[in-house]
This record gives sequence, C-alpha cells and structure tokens, in this order.
Amino acid sequence: MIDRPELRKRSANFVPLSPVSFLARAAQFFGDRVAILHGERRFTYRQFYARARQLAHALTKAGVKRGDTVAILAANTPAMLEAHFAAPMIGAVLNPINIRLDAPLIAFWLADREFHATIAPALALLGSKRPIVIDIADAETEGAPNFGEVEYEDFIASGDAAFAYAGPEDEWDSICLLYTSGTTGNPKGVVYSHRGAYLAALGNALTFKLDHESRYLWTLPMFHCSGWTFTWGVTATGGTHVCLRRVEPRRIFDAIVAHRITHICGAPIVLNMLVHAPADAKHPLPVRTKVATGGAAPPAIVIQRMEAMGFEVLHLYGTTESYGPSTYCAPMPEWQALPEDDRYALMARQGIANALIEHLMVADPHTLQPVPRDGVTMGEIMVTGNTLMKGYLKNEAETDEAFAGGFYHSGDLAAWHGDGSIEVKDRSKDIIISGGENISSLEVEEVLYRHPQVMEAAVVARFDEKWGEHPCAFVALKPGSGPITADDIIAFCRANMAHFKVPRTVIFGELPKTSTGKIQKFVLRDKANALK
Amino acid sequence: MIDRPELRKRSANFVPLSPVSFLARAAQFFGDRVAILHGERRFTYRQFYARARQLAHALTKAGVKRGDTVAILAANTPAMLEAHFAAPMIGAVLNPINIRLDAPLIAFWLADREFHATIAPALALLGSKRPIVIDIADAETEGAPNFGEVEYEDFIASGDAAFAYAGPEDEWDSICLLYTSGTTGNPKGVVYSHRGAYLAALGNALTFKLDHESRYLWTLPMFHCSGWTFTWGVTATGGTHVCLRRVEPRRIFDAIVAHRITHICGAPIVLNMLVHAPADAKHPLPVRTKVATGGAAPPAIVIQRMEAMGFEVLHLYGTTESYGPSTYCAPMPEWQALPEDDRYALMARQGIANALIEHLMVADPHTLQPVPRDGVTMGEIMVTGNTLMKGYLKNEAETDEAFAGGFYHSGDLAAWHGDGSIEVKDRSKDIIISGGENISSLEVEEVLYRHPQVMEAAVVARFDEKWGEHPCAFVALKPGSGPITADDIIAFCRANMAHFKVPRTVIFGELPKTSTGKIQKFVLRDKANALK
Repeated sequence: MIDRPELRKRSANFVPLSPVSFLARAAQFFGDRVAILHGERRFTYRQFYARARQLAHALTKAGVKRGDTVAILAANTPAMLEAHFAAPMIGAVLNPINIRLDAPLIAFWLADREFHATIAPALALLGSKRPIVIDIADAETEGAPNFGEVEYEDFIASGDAAFAYAGPEDEWDSICLLYTSGTTGNPKGVVYSHRGAYLAALGNALTFKLDHESRYLWTLPMFHCSGWTFTWGVTATGGTHVCLRRVEPRRIFDAIVAHRITHICGAPIVLNMLVHAPADAKHPLPVRTKVATGGAAPPAIVIQRMEAMGFEVLHLYGTTESYGPSTYCAPMPEWQALPEDDRYALMARQGIANALIEHLMVADPHTLQPVPRDGVTMGEIMVTGNTLMKGYLKNEAETDEAFAGGFYHSGDLAAWHGDGSIEVKDRSKDIIISGGENISSLEVEEVLYRHPQVMEAAVVARFDEKWGEHPCAFVALKPGSGPITADDIIAFCRANMAHFKVPRTVIFGELPKTSTGKIQKFVLRDKANALK
Repeated sequence: MIDRPELRKRSANFVPLSPVSFLARAAQFFGDRVAILHGERRFTYRQFYARARQLAHALTKAGVKRGDTVAILAANTPAMLEAHFAAPMIGAVLNPINIRLDAPLIAFWLADREFHATIAPALALLGSKRPIVIDIADAETEGAPNFGEVEYEDFIASGDAAFAYAGPEDEWDSICLLYTSGTTGNPKGVVYSHRGAYLAALGNALTFKLDHESRYLWTLPMFHCSGWTFTWGVTATGGTHVCLRRVEPRRIFDAIVAHRITHICGAPIVLNMLVHAPADAKHPLPVRTKVATGGAAPPAIVIQRMEAMGFEVLHLYGTTESYGPSTYCAPMPEWQALPEDDRYALMARQGIANALIEHLMVADPHTLQPVPRDGVTMGEIMVTGNTLMKGYLKNEAETDEAFAGGFYHSGDLAAWHGDGSIEVKDRSKDIIISGGENISSLEVEEVLYRHPQVMEAAVVARFDEKWGEHPCAFVALKPGSGPITADDIIAFCRANMAHFKVPRTVIFGELPKTSTGKIQKFVLRDKANALK
C-alpha cells in the first residue's frame, strides 16, 4: 500500500500547516465575536481578519516580498497581533523587536510611537539604508512625536480587506525571527517555521485549555517567542485577546475584573508583582483565572501566594528556541492530599514534556547519556521535536552547537525525578562552584524569597580566592520594608540551607532586568566581581 | 531568508508527525499511571508501551513488513488499542475490521474469539491464501473456540518490550485502512496517514478538552474511524482508556460510576439507549460526564434528555473520510439565556469547523458555489484540510469524485446559518422529493422522536405514483409502550409539521442497523418499495 496514485497528496487533503489558517477559520466561524480588546477599541474576528489582510496587501504594495523581514517594535497592541498574521500571509518573516535589532536586514519597519526615543537614533544611524517606517499611534500614545512615513491606520486603510494572499509555499518556510532576550549578553536570531508555529500554538492551547470562551490578557510581551505562540493559539480557539500596553499591577487587576479574564501568561516576576501589588490595586477575581508562568523558575512561595489570591497557577518551561513552553507541570490529583509545602514544591517543578515534544531528557551535555532519575543528579535539559527552531540566523556554528548530537541543548541544568518530571536547578552559566561543590543559584534564591522583607532576589557567583567562587546575593526589598542588614539575610539563610550554600556577600538594591522581565545575571556577575 | 543552510531540517527539529509519538511520551511521563482498564485487568502507560512494542516486534518476526496490512477484528479491548500503535511502529497499515473485509489484501490477522462464528467461514473461504491468524481471548470470551495459530498473549510474549521500531518513513505514510460502514451498501476503503491521524487526534483532544485526568469510556467502536482518532487522542493527553466489550446501558452506567468516567463518545443511538435504560440500570453520575455524539444527527429531544440526566452533550459531525469529527457545535455563553427548546435546537446543529479544518462550506455540489447563509437553502457540506483521508484504496475514480474541484464532498446536505454554523438536513441520497418539494428525512424523524411512545424512528422515500415519492416512517416503540396505530403517528405529525412532509406510510418494528449503530436506510428503502 505504498505510493499508490489514488492516495497522493491533493490540495483538498494536504495543506501547509500555517497559523494563518487559524485566523481565516476564526473569521468564518467566530466572525461576530470579539477578537481583540484594546482600551475603548474592539475588533471582531471578521474585522481582525480584514485588517490583517489589509496590512498584508499594504505591505505587498509597499514592496515587501516573500522572504523579506518585517520588523515591528510595539507594545501588546492590535497592530502587533495583526502583524503576526499579515507577514506570514505573504511569506514575509516577522521580526518582533525586543532590544537588539539587526538593522540592515530589515526591509520594513512598524513601530509604536511610545518608543520614539529608541527609534529615532536607530534610524539616524541607518542613514540612507533606512527602511520604510510605519508608526503606530493610539489613544495612549497621544503627544508622542511621529517618526514614520505614514501612520499605521492610514497604511492599512490603503490595503484591500479581501486581499487574496498566497500563504507559505512550504510549511517549513520561516515565519518569525526572534532575538533571544540576552540574559547572557549575546543575543542570537532564532527562526521559527510556519509548521512549528502552528503545532506549538495548538499544543499550548491544549495544555492551557483555551477555547472560544477564553479571555486572554496580554501580560506576556508578544515580542517574547511571539507571546509563547499564544498570538496564534488564542486565535486558533476563537478566544478574545485583551491587549495591555504596560504591565502594571493596577492595570492588570483592573483588566481582570473588567473583562473577566480567564487566562494570563507571565514571567514569575509578573506574578511577584501581583503578589506585592498595593492593597488598593488588588481586587477579588470575578472568575478563576489561570496563570501560566515560565521564562524563569518561579519560587514555590510565589505560586503559593498567587493561589491564595485565587489564581490557578500552571508552571511552564521552555526557551525561545522551543517556541516558548515545551514542558508543563501537570498537576496530579493525588497532590491535593499533600501538605501545602510539598504540593507547592511539586508545582514549582518544570514538569513533563507537552504533547508536541518528541523527546525530553536530562543528560550529560557531552556524552548525551541520560542522568539517573533520582531527583538529585544534575544534567542538561535536551529536547527534540517539531516545535524547535529552524536555527540561528546566519550563525551555523551556534546552530550546530545547539543541535549537537541530534538534541537541542537548552543550557539549563536540571535534576530528573522518578515520575519523569524535571526540576531546573540553574542555567549552566549560573551555577556556582564553591570548593568543588555545585551550588544552584535558584535554590538559594528560593530561600531568599521566603524572607518576609524580600521582594526579589538573585544569586550569582563571585570570585573567591579560597573557594574559587562563592554565592553573592542581590536583594530588592519590599516597599516600606523596615531596616535590615546583610548579616540578617545571611543568618536567615544559615537557618534554612546547608552552610556551604549561604551567600557571603549580600547587596541591596533594584535588580537589572531585560525587557521581558528576566533578571540580567551577567550584569550582576560583573557587579559582584567589581566589588572591592 | 529563504533556504539558508543553517535553517535546514534536522532530526532534532523535524520529526514525521505520527501518533506513535504520543504513546512513547505517555510512557515516559505518565509511566506509572493507568493507561487501560479492562475488567479486572489494568495496564500502566509503561506497560501499554511495552506491550505495543512487543506486538510490533512479534509482527516483525512473523514477517510483517512496511506497507503490509494487519487486520484486526476485535471488541473495544486492550489488543485493539495496542494494535493502533504497534502496526504504525513498523510502518504497517492497520485495518480495524468492521463487517466487510478485503481478504486477499490481508497479510496478518488478529481476531477476538467473540467473533469466531464470523471468522471461521471467512477463513475457510480463503483456503490456501489464509493469512496468519492470532486469536484474542480474555475473561469474557471463555468457552469460545480458538481458531488461530496462537493466542494473542502468547504472541506478544514472544516480542521484545524494548524493540527499537523505525516508525513511519514519511508522515504521509498510510497508518490505517477503514471500510466505510456501508449505510449505502457500497463500502470503500478509506486510507489515513500518520500526519492526519496525529493532527486529528490533537484536534479532538482540544475540542473535547481531554487531559491526563480524563477517564474515557470506550462506547464508540474503535473500528469506527479508529474510534474517531480517540485511540490516539486519549493517549496524547495521558488519560485513561476504559475498555468496554459490549455497548449495553447497564454496563455503561456501571462503568461510569465505578471509574468516574469524564468522557464518552457515541452515536445518537447510544445516547438514546441510555435515555431509555431500565430505571434500575440508571445511576446518578459521580462527576459531570461529557458526551460527544455524532455519526448521525441527534434529535434535539435526545440531547435534552441526556442533559436532564446530568450529561454534558457536545455534538460533533464528520465522516469516515474526515477521520471522524470535523465540526463541533461550540456552545455559546448567550445560549444559556434562551428558552430550552431554542437552546436544544441550536445544540442539535452540527456547528462549526474544528481548529484543524482548513475550509468548510455548504455549496452547490456541481458549481461549488457556496449557498447563502440563510439557514434555509440546502447545499452539500464540503471540507478541505490535513485531516481528510489520503483516498479510497484501489479506487481512483471514487477518490477523484470525492475530491472533485479540490474539496472533499461529504454527501451530506445542510443549511448554512448566519453565524457560520451548519445544520445537516439529510444525506443527499436520503432526501425525499415529493411533488417537487424537498423533504428532509431528519426533520420528520426529529418530530417522531418527540412522540412519547417512540424510541427510534427512520424515514425514507417510498415510490408514489402521484407525487413521485412520499415519506415512509419506520418506528420502533419504547418497551412497554401501549397500543398505537399508524393513524395516531400520522395525526401527531400533522400537528407538528407542514402537511406535505407528513408520512403517508408508518411501519412498526425494530430498525436494521450497521455494526456502528447507524440505521440502514437502504434496507428500509427496499422494504418500503416492496410494500404492496
């Protein structure tokens, strides 16, 4: 029964997988339902689809061709969602810009007026190589200067809402270019395919249980792994995207109440922000809101406090290279019978591979031998599957290294438990080696977060003549926190962890973060080693 | 950014889509959890995977090669689930046998002892072309004669649980061969691909909201579209398969209570059976059980009665050619405010395309012009997408016809509503044309089902000298129903429908059904026209 002619691929039974299909379907079957809410503006799925087609057409008329890169620097606004469908419609590659940008690559540039101070000097540098620039304005950018050739609404108005786009030629075609957020200070251009984006979006919708009644609040930046593919995933299920220009606790709680938000994603730092929101900003939740968190390991205490506020927390783990989430911490019914601390410790694990991942293992990075599932031995998290990047743009060496031996190497160190779940111990570069012993910076941070005056904490290695390295803690205190000394922190740590793990240096102050809210440990490491 | 070498496919980021991956993953991450329950037997996911690999290896040793067909005739038992993974592991094509079988095609045959009376004569006919036969026994087949070379458990015991299977070479490879159940009396061999099976299973898991806590009761035959792909879909989410040898209301209610069943699929006839179960067989549901129904249009009254018993009904629509469900009736929050009758009428619609379908339309079968979305005009349901069959085996002409003009033609007639939802009016061959007017047999049946003494009803065309055709009703009464005449039924119809639609002939008695529980209208049509 191999290769029989009557069983061939035809246009009716083989279609390149592309998330563009999700929007076309939503427009047809959820056409009159609200697709996007943004302040006072609302677009139905019919309108969302029409606007994306207009944008695709306007881009085509402006000269954007298959394979060209369209950059966008914008907050979590309708334009950002529209661009996630319009660029793929014409086979262009969307580059949601974070910080770094590979300017000469960009043929076309959409940018939010909020970021005029970032854009103007970048454009000046490009000189005659300046791409076509469209600036995006809305009610919240009033007063900001314009810097583009034309404003976004005027631009898309020139496009045809019935534009017959071609879509990808092949599902392996590139759909997005995303620069890693740079916790290491060395960003790489991660390239996604239509196929991977489609599958990841479906997988995330399944894991996070989205449907057409979901109301998804955009606390996670869409430029971060295309919003962990939820830009496409929410659309796949016909749910409502609720935009959010700025991640502030008051705005988040207000949106949750006003729109009866059912789903939120965000880094642990966002959850911590909600936990420590001013009392008058907090509101009781009108519905049980699911919160998926990832991008960094959430301290168990943060999960516990979120649940105390009524949120249902799902812990995800992944990297930009894996289209965001590749594991989830599936809650088991028997956990309900456990003491609270044990249960939250389990929930703080990174969990198990989602349904789209082919292989997940914790292994020796050199031999690729899986480590024993003893919950202790550390190895590197490695994955394979269709939801892994195509590669790093123009960087064959780093791509080969990332995929060495046929596995994607995450760079994260974890222990593997008997039930198959993984527990991240550290980024391989963040591990502290003191007197020959490995100290997980996350473990030390986990204890620091339990201190009643600590709001945020980060621990890095500091050079030590005697021990090689020792843990150095950076601590941001809660607002209104009383006086506290380094010795107080150290004493708290001594009472709660093995003594060789206790930080010998404690520094108070705000922590440097990337635009996605990750703490920049490389900055802290430099700081620690510059200390006299 | 087109075709850059660093962005090529590699084994780490491109894997042929195949549902075999779901079992491997479940074994790794849900290894100690119950995968299959069958009477007193239970297998964990680790065991399920080991047994499937043993079967794959034993088949290989017995000479089964890539592209060979492995037939299985079995009830909803563990062997049936295992075969759905073992055959694909070695690139063989599983043929879950319904009634008809294309005997010369079959290299290998697994068969349940329950069906010895069917098998023995078929084998005798094959003579020297007899395939290798494995018979399957369990606690419920005690006393039945054996007819195979070896019993299933002995056969798989000869296989290696760590067998390194190769999987499909390409995701377009064939995975299953399924003969349509033959409501028309002309079965065709529908061929599925690994890709389609993988995507359909994911899509159904998403639509039916399966997860690792789901306990799925096997009321739907697994030989029917591979159980609407739930053989793979339940496995994809790590849920529990609860086997069921015979579809009897008492067994179903007992299983629901004993195993706290969360999900059931079945034809409307199964739902009707539960509605009319003897009072002492019915039990209150321990959890809210979701019931997906499809395969025939469920009368609104059946949905209403099921919900009154505490079930949550989801209406699906599809064909064998579409891997089972391709639409679902997504319940809208605003429906809650409607009068009950209106709400159940909406729930009886076939609804909207699921997330995996590329295009769904109701169109003129000849011109392919979509009909207006007026809820009245009838056209044929047509779909395209990756969850449509590869084709009909050895039947290029019928395949070309099914895919004419680039759309799969379902053969079902529907109206299209303004909200995008479809409502099946009839199979094109079941429509009754009386005096030039179309009469939907389903509409007449819908009314008959509302009669307090009617348990099942089917309406077909009967030749009529004056009108061309007229509706002829076949009615099965509820057990213990009092005396009733054809005139009583006709009077009830006259009070509830346009007079030209009222049946002129009414015949009482049991209705002939296919093995999947569909009423065989072609048998009834013959009967109607043989009447004097």
